[in-house]
Amino acid sequence: MIHKVVILGASGYTGAELVRLIVSHPNMKIHALSANRKAGLEIGFVFPHLRHLSLPKLEKIETIDMSSVDLVFCALPHSTSQAVIRMLPEHVKVVDLSADFRIKNTEVYAKWYGKDHDAADLQKIAVYGLTEFYRDEIAKARLVAGTGCNAATGQYVLRPLISAGVIDLDHIIIDLKTGVSGAGRSAKENLLHAELSEGFQAYAVGGQHRHLAEFDQEFSFLAGREVKVQFTPHLLPTNRGILATVYVQGSVEKIFNTLQEAYSEETFIKVLPMGEHPSTRHVRGSNFCHIGVVADRISNRVTVLAALDNLTKGSSGQALQNANLMLGCEEAMGLMMAPLFP
Amino acid sequence: MIHKVVILGASGYTGAELVRLIVSHPNMKIHALSANRKAGLEIGFVFPHLRHLSLPKLEKIETIDMSSVDLVFCALPHSTSQAVIRMLPEHVKVVDLSADFRIKNTEVYAKWYGKDHDAADLQKIAVYGLTEFYRDEIAKARLVAGTGCNAATGQYVLRPLISAGVIDLDHIIIDLKTGVSGAGRSAKENLLHAELSEGFQAYAVGGQHRHLAEFDQEFSFLAGREVKVQFTPHLLPTNRGILATVYVQGSVEKIFNTLQEAYSEETFIKVLPMGEHPSTRHVRGSNFCHIGVVADRISNRVTVLAALDNLTKGSSGQALQNANLMLGCEEAMGLMMAPLFP
Amino acid sequence: MIHKVVILGASGYTGAELVRLIVSHPNMKIHALSANRKAGLEIGFVFPHLRHLSLPKLEKIETIDMSSVDLVFCALPHSTSQAVIRMLPEHVKVVDLSADFRIKNTEVYAKWYGKDHDAADLQKIAVYGLTEFYRDEIAKARLVAGTGCNAATGQYVLRPLISAGVIDLDHIIIDLKTGVSGAGRSAKENLLHAELSEGFQAYAVGGQHRHLAEFDQEFSFLAGREVKVQFTPHLLPTNRGILATVYVQGSVEKIFNTLQEAYSEETFIKVLPMGEHPSTRHVRGSNFCHIGVVADRISNRVTVLAALDNLTKGSSGQALQNANLMLGCEEAMGLMMAPLFP
Amino acid sequence: MIHKVVILGASGYTGAELVRLIVSHPNMKIHALSANRKAGLEIGFVFPHLRHLSLPKLEKIETIDMSSVDLVFCALPHSTSQAVIRMLPEHVKVVDLSADFRIKNTEVYAKWYGKDHDAADLQKIAVYGLTEFYRDEIAKARLVAGTGCNAATGQYVLRPLISAGVIDLDHIIIDLKTGVSGAGRSAKENLLHAELSEGFQAYAVGGQHRHLAEFDQEFSFLAGREVKVQFTPHLLPTNRGILATVYVQGSVEKIFNTLQEAYSEETFIKVLPMGEHPSTRHVRGSNFCHIGVVADRISNRVTVLAALDNLTKGSSGQALQNANLMLGCEEAMGLMMAPLFP
Repeated sequence: MIHKVVILGASGYTGAELVRLIVSHPNMKIHALSANRKAGLEIGFVFPHLRHLSLPKLEKIETIDMSSVDLVFCALPHSTSQAVIRMLPEHVKVVDLSADFRIKNTEVYAKWYGKDHDAADLQKIAVYGLTEFYRDEIAKARLVAGTGCNAATGQYVLRPLISAGVIDLDHIIIDLKTGVSGAGRSAKENLLHAELSEGFQAYAVGGQHRHLAEFDQEFSFLAGREVKVQFTPHLLPTNRGILATVYVQGSVEKIFNTLQEAYSEETFIKVLPMGEHPSTRHVRGSNFCHIGVVADRISNRVTVLAALDNLTKGSSGQALQNANLMLGCEEAMGLMMAPLFP
Repeated sequence: MIHKVVILGASGYTGAELVRLIVSHPNMKIHALSANRKAGLEIGFVFPHLRHLSLPKLEKIETIDMSSVDLVFCALPHSTSQAVIRMLPEHVKVVDLSADFRIKNTEVYAKWYGKDHDAADLQKIAVYGLTEFYRDEIAKARLVAGTGCNAATGQYVLRPLISAGVIDLDHIIIDLKTGVSGAGRSAKENLLHAELSEGFQAYAVGGQHRHLAEFDQEFSFLAGREVKVQFTPHLLPTNRGILATVYVQGSVEKIFNTLQEAYSEETFIKVLPMGEHPSTRHVRGSNFCHIGVVADRISNRVTVLAALDNLTKGSSGQALQNANLMLGCEEAMGLMMAPLFP
Repeated sequence: MIHKVVILGASGYTGAELVRLIVSHPNMKIHALSANRKAGLEIGFVFPHLRHLSLPKLEKIETIDMSSVDLVFCALPHSTSQAVIRMLPEHVKVVDLSADFRIKNTEVYAKWYGKDHDAADLQKIAVYGLTEFYRDEIAKARLVAGTGCNAATGQYVLRPLISAGVIDLDHIIIDLKTGVSGAGRSAKENLLHAELSEGFQAYAVGGQHRHLAEFDQEFSFLAGREVKVQFTPHLLPTNRGILATVYVQGSVEKIFNTLQEAYSEETFIKVLPMGEHPSTRHVRGSNFCHIGVVADRISNRVTVLAALDNLTKGSSGQALQNANLMLGCEEAMGLMMAPLFP
Repeated sequence: MIHKVVILGASGYTGAELVRLIVSHPNMKIHALSANRKAGLEIGFVFPHLRHLSLPKLEKIETIDMSSVDLVFCALPHSTSQAVIRMLPEHVKVVDLSADFRIKNTEVYAKWYGKDHDAADLQKIAVYGLTEFYRDEIAKARLVAGTGCNAATGQYVLRPLISAGVIDLDHIIIDLKTGVSGAGRSAKENLLHAELSEGFQAYAVGGQHRHLAEFDQEFSFLAGREVKVQFTPHLLPTNRGILATVYVQGSVEKIFNTLQEAYSEETFIKVLPMGEHPSTRHVRGSNFCHIGVVADRISNRVTVLAALDNLTKGSSGQALQNANLMLGCEEAMGLMMAPLFP
């Protein structure tokens, strides 16, 4: 059975990544692509790497006939999503890649995102889209909120450890490094090649990054108490890839065993042998997440490292994985491509 | 029907690229992987990006049971290939990725490669593996010689033009730029990151590059007279990608029309609209080749540009395309993945 | 004696490069820095790599007291320069880094730059700033027009050869590759890191690049007849550096000897031994230009390659070299720093 | 007065960086350059970016006439240094860039470096070369041991804080990211461009990096008790630059004030305004170190970030700064060049 899907916001990087993945998916067909400012253009004009594909032209959202559509991927900016998703017909399932439906408490959303939430009713039915931990709810959901790419990476390390109670909840540090595609395709001086290449720096230091809202919500829920982590993102001079270096306190054996058990049945989350650690280049373009556990020379201190591709497992691959569940496809369908190296 | 294939030399970049492609191929199964110095290791140890795969361990060539094998991809160094392929049982078809069987005249081979050819008998049955131009012979061949990656790029531009007689044969310049993966995985000072990144230079300037042997052979054959081109390769600080900027003399309309007609039915060769030109980033990780034709302000001068991924369309993708023909699979099977961008 | 200088347009890359060079210059002092949209800010805010310096704040051009100023570097955009330089007091010497005064014939300027020239009177007194060839005129000039960075690179190769009559004037091809800083600091989608890194492409193919106006003017003047070259620039995924691969026809000995003699007394132009060729990484951040001559296997065909840093020798270093002459300083003063490698 | 200096090990990156710096130093002259395996070659052959310089040819150490030499920079590998420095005549001052004389306790040295120390007598007179903290001893020393580049970066953040007693000594984490030139110029597979670019990973995770010996020694000495830090280095796909993200616990005001006071008189260490943080690209090629202090949203948690160029302030620039003191030159002489950006 072929499912008809629509990608809203196809002129951004996560939109293009969805196209890349879906055109190889055996059971999905792209019914329409939207890009308001580029309506009327071929996708191959906006993204020449997709020029070999026969796809519908980019159009405005309002011109899309949704009557036969099964699922919409919404890759629009924060806050635009709320308005657009509200207008979609009831029969259409939605995977939203923005931050709009990640935060259950709309006041917390308003605080981090600087504006009121306009779709509190939809928020109530939204399921948080970290597939491996919300699989059942996602399969039944109408609306799934894709996670932040940094938020996903940190959670793959920490969720099992917090749930199992094997780490000190008051001493968690996530030192994270992410490639530039996570910042999107907008023309900003600080994202220019000449500004970014051959250099490295942190950003949103000291607890300012919005993905902390997701960490706070999820970790506190799991722990049954408030959990606050330290989180410092850095900008890598690479296009893709996130590496999180997570500092925790606890028994290295318990930590390793907990992670290994948590992911032993997972297709995409690979826990490396004790002492090994991952590299972003070994997951590029794939839906895999590699996790490594290393004991520190100081007793009871452990470093856990996780790598994934921000555009694939961190956003568009995750979105497709969720869509598979929502449409009754096999979860890994269309997502088993090997990473591209070198 | 599932065809059993073997990859010899699986610890190099073209070997790893073959693995990446073949594990997504519906009708092929990897029966064995060889890497003499790394025999006994898992492929995921040598190439961690492949660690999610369940594949046979690397082994020595001589321990591989070839009895049920349909086809061998030989990704060994030049001159090693000759000896190894000679030992393979008759029922095994072979796609060789080395230079060993590209040059029909073994004396010419000896001149360019600095040693005598040791398998002149095999050379006689070898078919030159530029799929789009030797399709029928390849389908019937036992031994196909993969082309040089630079040689492929230049030929996609020039073969139709020479065959059609629409360019001046005495004024052809190929100014080519290639990513570093083309130089292989050997530990050499000049291939270090600190030596290569943030810089650019030519190499083998003035007609010293071995791929000229292929240009000479093929172009002279097509023209029915000796054709010598000027060819300057340069090393790009990127991992993948070749861009050839080819300077020719002739009518831009005839040149454009000739190319467009030559490739109108081809799946992987895309001639862009007149005046547009390609980028290596838009074919990365794919089997596509993009070709652009631009008239110069000087009358009768034309610039033709071609881009492909040296590891995919330039070697391992081409090899798989040829293997498909040899095994009776659809030519594009397993090769339709979209490029990875950004 | 300390000369007071002003940099107009200090918030762009050529402006910052001028600051970097001049703060190490023994006989110059920065009197004022302008940046209209960033007036009031410290240069260290706009360019944090300059934060250790004690310099005047950025201000608007009109607030600068020019009464004691000896020389102004004008690093403003094309066409803005004309208006600004017209307003400067007569006693101030000017080195302009824009294209505004490079083209002697204002109708030709209008054709290439798409607008009329507004300072034809100043154009008459402007000297073309390719130091090694206009040294005497520059020393006496009030207004020097810095060359295009690509135009400089091509001319270092071709001027001596055209003057000496040792190459065929109808078969000159300049295949040039330039780093991204040449495109300036403006926030454009096509200059984003994610768009530019790990890829390569041509631009302005077929004779559309404005620096052709300089080639046409200078080469035709030298030859005493119209000379038109083919010129294809490409964008390198590096921050700095230009490599020009120039294809000419003539005797390699004559070509090599002509270049060697032309530059034997030059401080910054280094002709490499016959057969060697340059790399952009070996001139980075310096005022040197390396030139290599290689014979092709085809008789009478020669490849000449030149490398320089587009921001230093290609623009701001050249500007300082010219300013030295105009102010009576030693020509190489403040410009002898070694390249930064790796 | 001109001091004659010698560089031993001039064919490595720190050797080349010393040459780059010293040729602009007004009071030093390079008397000889050694490189045992490349003896007889010009430095411009080994490092083409230095080809414009008139310098002595590379030679073997034993052929250098040391009689008139004032100071030797020893940029040889670990353990080679011990043997070589032992042979130098008494009148020659020595700045060693290897690890051989950094560790006061030779048993600790043996443990971290895997071999016995062969020059325990010289170790006794060696002064640890972190200029800002050992200035007086360095000025009087015969032998100064340059610090590890990572060790320097971490100490610039932590020494003042430990001395002032404003941070918790049991909760210090240094998450450090370094460019590839720190790994030297040896041809290793894992340092190839194709292996390193477009990716990111940690190394020596869990307390295995040798620079911990320096942290342990210096921090325990300052604190008057054993201090052990957690230290995770990562390899950046850039040529130069170290960024250390240091997590400490204490009052952000006290931490900021302590650092600001500690470095208020220092030429090269710049403490940024509270809340700002540094980038490696803004110190590239310079001797500056930028330090930023940011409060975390969690009370009493502070993130301090430091950036420097590993080849300059981290090794060769530091070495020259020390040599200036040892020879009675002004400390900053030859080191005030602005960073190269972009």
